[in-house]
Amino acid sequence: MTETCDLLLTNAIVLTMDERFNQHTGGAVAITGDRLAAVGPAAAGYTARETVDCGGRVLMPGLVNAHTHAPMTLLRGLADDLRLDVWLLGYMMPVEREFVRPDYVRLGTGLACAEMIRSGVTTFADMYYFEQAVAEATAAAGLRALCGQTVLKFPTPDAASFEDSLALARDFIQQWKEHPLIVPAVSPHAPYTCTAEILKACAALAVEFDVPLHTHISETLLEVENSRRENGMPVVPWVKRQNLLDAKLLAAHCVHIDEGEMRTLKNAGAGVAHNPTSNLKLASGVAPVSLMLQTGLNVGIGTDGPASNNDLDMFAEVHLAAILAKGSTGDPTVLPARQALLMATRMGAQALHIGHLTGSLEAGKRADLILVDLQVLHNSPAFTRDPNGVYSQVVYAAKSTDVTDVMCNGRWLMRAGRLLTVDEAELQLAAREYAKKIDLFLIQREESVLRKLIAIGGAVEQESFEVQAKVRLPSDETVLAALSGEQLRIIRSVHYHEFDTYFQFADPAQGRLRFREDEFIDAQGKVFNVRSRLTLTGLQHEREYGSVLLSRSRYLAPAVHTLRFYREYFKPAQEREIEKDRRRWLVDYRGVEFFVNLDKMLKPALSGYFVEVKSRTWSRRDAEHKASLITEVLALFGTAEAVPVREEYVELAAA
Amino acid sequence: MTETCDLLLTNAIVLTMDERFNQHTGGAVAITGDRLAAVGPAAAGYTARETVDCGGRVLMPGLVNAHTHAPMTLLRGLADDLRLDVWLLGYMMPVEREFVRPDYVRLGTGLACAEMIRSGVTTFADMYYFEQAVAEATAAAGLRALCGQTVLKFPTPDAASFEDSLALARDFIQQWKEHPLIVPAVSPHAPYTCTAEILKACAALAVEFDVPLHTHISETLLEVENSRRENGMPVVPWVKRQNLLDAKLLAAHCVHIDEGEMRTLKNAGAGVAHNPTSNLKLASGVAPVSLMLQTGLNVGIGTDGPASNNDLDMFAEVHLAAILAKGSTGDPTVLPARQALLMATRMGAQALHIGHLTGSLEAGKRADLILVDLQVLHNSPAFTRDPNGVYSQVVYAAKSTDVTDVMCNGRWLMRAGRLLTVDEAELQLAAREYAKKIDLFLIQREESVLRKLIAIGGAVEQESFEVQAKVRLPSDETVLAALSGEQLRIIRSVHYHEFDTYFQFADPAQGRLRFREDEFIDAQGKVFNVRSRLTLTGLQHEREYGSVLLSRSRYLAPAVHTLRFYREYFKPAQEREIEKDRRRWLVDYRGVEFFVNLDKMLKPALSGYFVEVKSRTWSRRDAEHKASLITEVLALFGTAEAVPVREEYVELAAA
Repeated sequence: MTETCDLLLTNAIVLTMDERFNQHTGGAVAITGDRLAAVGPAAAGYTARETVDCGGRVLMPGLVNAHTHAPMTLLRGLADDLRLDVWLLGYMMPVEREFVRPDYVRLGTGLACAEMIRSGVTTFADMYYFEQAVAEATAAAGLRALCGQTVLKFPTPDAASFEDSLALARDFIQQWKEHPLIVPAVSPHAPYTCTAEILKACAALAVEFDVPLHTHISETLLEVENSRRENGMPVVPWVKRQNLLDAKLLAAHCVHIDEGEMRTLKNAGAGVAHNPTSNLKLASGVAPVSLMLQTGLNVGIGTDGPASNNDLDMFAEVHLAAILAKGSTGDPTVLPARQALLMATRMGAQALHIGHLTGSLEAGKRADLILVDLQVLHNSPAFTRDPNGVYSQVVYAAKSTDVTDVMCNGRWLMRAGRLLTVDEAELQLAAREYAKKIDLFLIQREESVLRKLIAIGGAVEQESFEVQAKVRLPSDETVLAALSGEQLRIIRSVHYHEFDTYFQFADPAQGRLRFREDEFIDAQGKVFNVRSRLTLTGLQHEREYGSVLLSRSRYLAPAVHTLRFYREYFKPAQEREIEKDRRRWLVDYRGVEFFVNLDKMLKPALSGYFVEVKSRTWSRRDAEHKASLITEVLALFGTAEAVPVREEYVELAAA
Repeated sequence: MTETCDLLLTNAIVLTMDERFNQHTGGAVAITGDRLAAVGPAAAGYTARETVDCGGRVLMPGLVNAHTHAPMTLLRGLADDLRLDVWLLGYMMPVEREFVRPDYVRLGTGLACAEMIRSGVTTFADMYYFEQAVAEATAAAGLRALCGQTVLKFPTPDAASFEDSLALARDFIQQWKEHPLIVPAVSPHAPYTCTAEILKACAALAVEFDVPLHTHISETLLEVENSRRENGMPVVPWVKRQNLLDAKLLAAHCVHIDEGEMRTLKNAGAGVAHNPTSNLKLASGVAPVSLMLQTGLNVGIGTDGPASNNDLDMFAEVHLAAILAKGSTGDPTVLPARQALLMATRMGAQALHIGHLTGSLEAGKRADLILVDLQVLHNSPAFTRDPNGVYSQVVYAAKSTDVTDVMCNGRWLMRAGRLLTVDEAELQLAAREYAKKIDLFLIQREESVLRKLIAIGGAVEQESFEVQAKVRLPSDETVLAALSGEQLRIIRSVHYHEFDTYFQFADPAQGRLRFREDEFIDAQGKVFNVRSRLTLTGLQHEREYGSVLLSRSRYLAPAVHTLRFYREYFKPAQEREIEKDRRRWLVDYRGVEFFVNLDKMLKPALSGYFVEVKSRTWSRRDAEHKASLITEVLALFGTAEAVPVREEYVELAAA
């Protein structure tokens, strides 16, 4: 008796990617409904309602993109060649705060799905905000996905607190749990962006619903160093303590894990997503893939988000995974083509904990498959001697553009290069509109150093006006004597070692940005505290009262990032460094408070001392009054002969 | 007055890649004859016989593939995931010896040119045999190329000796010196495959004709270690001594050069070709590109040959160069997109010493240009805020398949994806025929361990028949006593420590391949010599005379490669190791010579001693006669009681 099926694909080089790596040249695959009815010789006897001749193309499982952030297509190429923190905190997060809403996520996901279908992906693992919208757009495009609702300790575009995002994740999981294409998951973003409490809650949620938990693990060396310092152990044992390994874990990156951690992950049945392009581009390092595979871990391959890649091309990713493993181990026999392709198919599906559904062409699994044309110029000629030759062709020379047809869950998503479930032109048009808005947002922001400063958060605008005068003296004796005298009452005093870096910009209207590190010096001359602050000041004085100057400052404190971060973020046209010893007193003179700074310039080393007297002011009348008092204080300091110094220290340094 | 030109390209995003990185959005380029008449605003006023609207595509210089072996397209994917020596000596060279002739080279080059045109290359640097045929096929395809005729110290497919290939190179240079597209060059393959004399002769030839010299430098660490050991210095100073730096040097790879060598190359005005895919795939390492660029070296990017890549996709190569530099230095700001693209255009042309001709869009240079469509799904959306964004799009997300039009030397080679100068279908068909022949050659070779052995050269087939008997004894005393006695005359004796590795194959008819390392032991028990040999033996005895066995061996000596090489080349189904102490005597017994081996098995450790008596034989009568004499010798050794051992040692070990 002949068996029947809905669709018979014939005349293909069938790469099953099953346990035995069966290949069927001139082979067939029978499909009924959403499933593979038979593969290879077993399919030959089927009669079908429809038969498709594959014309000698390769018929293989759809690729599994094991880690991405699909909606970030809308940020593709927005900011490149930057350090991770500048890229993330300076560009991605501010733009996401401004733009990420459900319609944005839906559009970005649609664009990503179109690109992934074109490049032969039928399953991907995602992690983003508004994951509901990711799931909807993915299901509409007809792709299979593990969709992780992000949970963070910070406010996110879709939740004001971690409790809110956890509740979102619970609702999301309940709603999508039985969907034929979507596997809902919870995604605590990373150990370092979550608390122990958040990780535990996420693990409990994943276990309660038996869904995967998708997170970032040990992406950078810094993360591991911080974990060792703060938690006394590397990242994997620490997340194990937070119960993450009780869940069906998908751990993205794992660039910096040791063999013990690999065994821990393996014993927990965790999957790993290797993202070679992103890891190189962001200079995170090279994951020890070969060792992970030897340990028996299921390692999939992912593109990571298109903002850090900058595409979703799994053919490029598999190729890179294969050659990078060789180059980084010094062994060209490591990760041969067949194994690399396995990572992108069956093993990738296993890493996502859906190996029973997809990843290989085996009767009973879902019909997730692609046709790839190897009879193209850049893949000619072909050799048949070695059965591994065809994997070599797919991995080392095929391009994503050689994919001609894509089916997911028994449904054609692309035929002969034409997308059937998404409207590319419409998506591109809508994306272009979004890009214009984002461009405008950033262009306006980049026009002003102040806006850039505000955009990275943590900064508080504190506008203030100050009257001040500065005088240079050969010695500090007269000042110290006056401070000990009757006419000045000392309220408090402090001693700093100050390191200032001034960023100057091509447009002087942008002002100067000062990064100041204050070392607090105790009576024994020891440093007992350190503080960093950013201050943006205008270059021009607002007004002058004799030798007393009125200036305006915008204080933005504290400086939570490194000097390097600010340098790469603000890209100053010029930089100048100042170092000085500062003794500072808050004094009362005739009922008005003044700051007195007694400064010794160390870099550049200048002879003598500078004394500054200054006070905040709020009105012209107040300013005039204080200016006259400052002149009197300076007289107390014995500066009658001294020439007032009108330049800022940074200007003195430049002179 | 309006100026006139032959062709005006309008409405393009013109990336000039000139010194100032001028970009012209909505820009134009005017072409007259083979040259650029004007670029950008200067072109706007031209009237043209023909105007082409570029539809907003990117118009940029054609890419420069700084190092390849074009004809090796015909070996693409033939053998992958192998160690360099196995790949080169086991596959590439035997196949090249068999197949490389001018028609093969012409075909392979045609295929390569078609692929390179498709991926936006207008200039490449080549090195192969029969370079005359490479030049002809390249000129016919309309591409620009630096063509290096290979010179080696070994016989090559096109020359029996280095003098012949040098003469070929001289003729080649003279013939092509004035060609508008071909820049002839001499290519001593590498310092380690040439002698000092050859390098000096090549340098003199290059200087005589003022043509480039294209060679491989410091591709692997082994090469550098060997140079340090043999020449007392790393590779660059050594080739400098051979006058290579007097020539216009193009040094491919430079994976393992230090900063001093970089400065030496820079001072000599040498160019470097960086081949990241090949260097990773063959596990050669990662070239210090960022340092080379800091030194001021002109570093181009190359695909290397398609047999080690496995394609000629310069878009993939530029992308990899950019991200690998970041990953390998840990600095994501290194080699930003614009600089990576510069390496593949203007700087690449400078590395080839033809920067005055091509590599940027500047009036007066040759019209070598391409159109790239960035308005595709995988490159959407696009941001305009940052002028570097377009380089980011080209480097990080564009694919070679986004190239729509290619012009070289003022001639269109591709329009709207259609090749105009080569017939792809015809090339593919011819390549397929060659592939069949190569497949057949290798299939036949791989069918037989013996043929594989012969294919890698240096092996000599020495068929021989031996009669032998072996007996196990509790002690060596009786044997040593008999050897001191009257009836045996010792001709000579030797003492070995023998390490044997047996390769066994799935098909027993293939026999066993033995890799034997003999340590020669002197009277003090010290090793004074080591020798390695390969021996292929059948598994079956030919005949038996009582306990004396007749067997057939095929000796193939010496073993010039490592055990690891043979393991990876022959891929045995099983391996077994034997280690023994062997005292061996050549004795005369009744006018016939016999070998006596007195063996102590060390691995596996077996109690007692084995004594073997054997002799070569040439006829059945001789064999019968010697068999009876062997029985008598064994009797002298007091083995009357002992049971004969019929098994080989390797079989004893397996038991």
